[in-house]
Amino acid sequence: MNVTELFGIALPILQAPMAGVQGSALAIAVSEAGGLGALPCAMLGPDAIRTELAAIRAATSRPFNVNFFCHTAPVPDAAREAAWRAALAPCYAELGIDAAAIPAGAGRRPFDAEAAEVLEAFRPPVVSFHFGLPPPELLARVRAWGAKVLSSATTVDEARWLEAHGVDAVIAQGVEAGGHRGMFLTEDLTTQVGTFALLPQIVRAVRVPVIAAGGIADAAGVAAALSLGAVAAQVGTSFLLCPEATTSAPHRAALASDAARHTALTNVFTGRPARGIVNRVIREVGPISAVAPAFPLATAAITPLRAAAERRGSGDFSPLWSGQNASGCRAVPAGQLTRMLAGTP
Amino acid sequence: MNVTELFGIALPILQAPMAGVQGSALAIAVSEAGGLGALPCAMLGPDAIRTELAAIRAATSRPFNVNFFCHTAPVPDAAREAAWRAALAPCYAELGIDAAAIPAGAGRRPFDAEAAEVLEAFRPPVVSFHFGLPPPELLARVRAWGAKVLSSATTVDEARWLEAHGVDAVIAQGVEAGGHRGMFLTEDLTTQVGTFALLPQIVRAVRVPVIAAGGIADAAGVAAALSLGAVAAQVGTSFLLCPEATTSAPHRAALASDAARHTALTNVFTGRPARGIVNRVIREVGPISAVAPAFPLATAAITPLRAAAERRGSGDFSPLWSGQNASGCRAVPAGQLTRMLAGTP
Repeated sequence: MNVTELFGIALPILQAPMAGVQGSALAIAVSEAGGLGALPCAMLGPDAIRTELAAIRAATSRPFNVNFFCHTAPVPDAAREAAWRAALAPCYAELGIDAAAIPAGAGRRPFDAEAAEVLEAFRPPVVSFHFGLPPPELLARVRAWGAKVLSSATTVDEARWLEAHGVDAVIAQGVEAGGHRGMFLTEDLTTQVGTFALLPQIVRAVRVPVIAAGGIADAAGVAAALSLGAVAAQVGTSFLLCPEATTSAPHRAALASDAARHTALTNVFTGRPARGIVNRVIREVGPISAVAPAFPLATAAITPLRAAAERRGSGDFSPLWSGQNASGCRAVPAGQLTRMLAGTP
Repeated sequence: MNVTELFGIALPILQAPMAGVQGSALAIAVSEAGGLGALPCAMLGPDAIRTELAAIRAATSRPFNVNFFCHTAPVPDAAREAAWRAALAPCYAELGIDAAAIPAGAGRRPFDAEAAEVLEAFRPPVVSFHFGLPPPELLARVRAWGAKVLSSATTVDEARWLEAHGVDAVIAQGVEAGGHRGMFLTEDLTTQVGTFALLPQIVRAVRVPVIAAGGIADAAGVAAALSLGAVAAQVGTSFLLCPEATTSAPHRAALASDAARHTALTNVFTGRPARGIVNRVIREVGPISAVAPAFPLATAAITPLRAAAERRGSGDFSPLWSGQNASGCRAVPAGQLTRMLAGTP
């Protein structure tokens, strides 16, 4: 099955949903160019989702993807939160932040009934999930309007689990990928493998179509992924310098510099391993902190540090999400980049 | 420059040198089939190297590669050795080994004047190194008979360093690769990236030809590597079930099972990070041990455990070297596998 049959799109390019650095504008540009644009909803409330979906519907009649996290909300742990804030205490002192005044909070919400209700009004043609799948009753609501359902697998076991639970396609997320690892059957980072190893093993293990993600940055990368059996490539990092992305100035500067050649999987920004460019906070309290609260609770204590540093033009405390291959980043319109990735400029 | 111009071989397949699991027989079979066979010399003394080279010269007139490690021999550290043996003490007790009777030792020697002298008698057409390059006077001796010189890069910086020091081609070793990481300008494992990310960035960074390694297991993988700009693929793991390999029975069994889907970078076998299938000793004292002595000194204390376990048919303490993609392992003659990898069966 090719991407036209699967999603009704012309080019084998999925734009990776990237919460915090893009909204509807990037999704629209990619979909209009013939790829599958994506709206990341993990950091949006129901009203914001509604506004963004209305914007997409107003701007394009092409297929698009809406993406949700589907983690189980954790039980807050006061001792761990205290240990985490203690680890960050020298940074609070340096930036003049009153740690006692920082509210606790989640930062990212899982897919829930409220979100499903918003989606029902818009009936998006593709819905993708990260960290597995939502509970069956919620998934059934998404299927009710005929949406194609995707989710990420970081191991062969996860790919088989997703197929058994009815996804229409599996995203094979190699360890090169930027942002959060989609891992959901294991927390062991040694299970996470490169795209060259993961993709062909998943292609062989499941019957549903497989989309390749991780380290794919240009047309040669897309071609290589297709030759390894993928029906399409999902590309994220390469879009981060496009004018339609909302990537911050420090993040853009890091991506365009040699700093982007050194990324790490880190849990310091959210509590779950995610890949970003190595910066001060990763070096000083990470990359993997044993005291970072469970996802997404680690976020709250970092947020004021990030805000204070960004006010000074610094990305020292920001998640500078990036995959291991930022060499395809181009400050060109996303539609043009989509066509370049597909080799049809 | 293609592989025929570079090495005088017909197929874009380099057999990865794999010390401990193969000798001249595998190298001969691959070279006779049109690829570039390799003799790993890291665990061989001068006499053994001479014997193996004589065997190769007697069996084939085709080009082949001899491979050496070129680490700096470490200064033994008695406290660390003691801590390492203490970490292994429960295992010694269980297997009835007298820890006091275990000799210290290196296990692997770097390329030296004695090895150069042996090579001078045989003038092998290709000499490859791991962990950088040997000192200039030794490298000059290798160049004197016109050998092509290769070495592995695990980062863009390492590739540029190797080019500046005169290699004829760079092996881009993605993190998927089995065995020892070739890293030599850094010890930070977060710098190690997947083949999809590493290969195109190195291709862009250097002018010499680039050979792709890591996660390449079959003809589709080779084709993908070539489409990312490599002139050839170096394949190791896929050859480990060939009859010409000397892979042990427990190692063969692990490679042929689902266990091979879970590998880790571990320093417990030698002191340097190397990728192998996760087994008991990796789980219990690794994967990365802070007390493992510097490479290659960690080997001595593990060796009697390995021997005792293997006598019982167990691979619990053996290095079960494997890349992240063992799906291409086939118990077929290595010449046939070489042609399969090249897509010319």
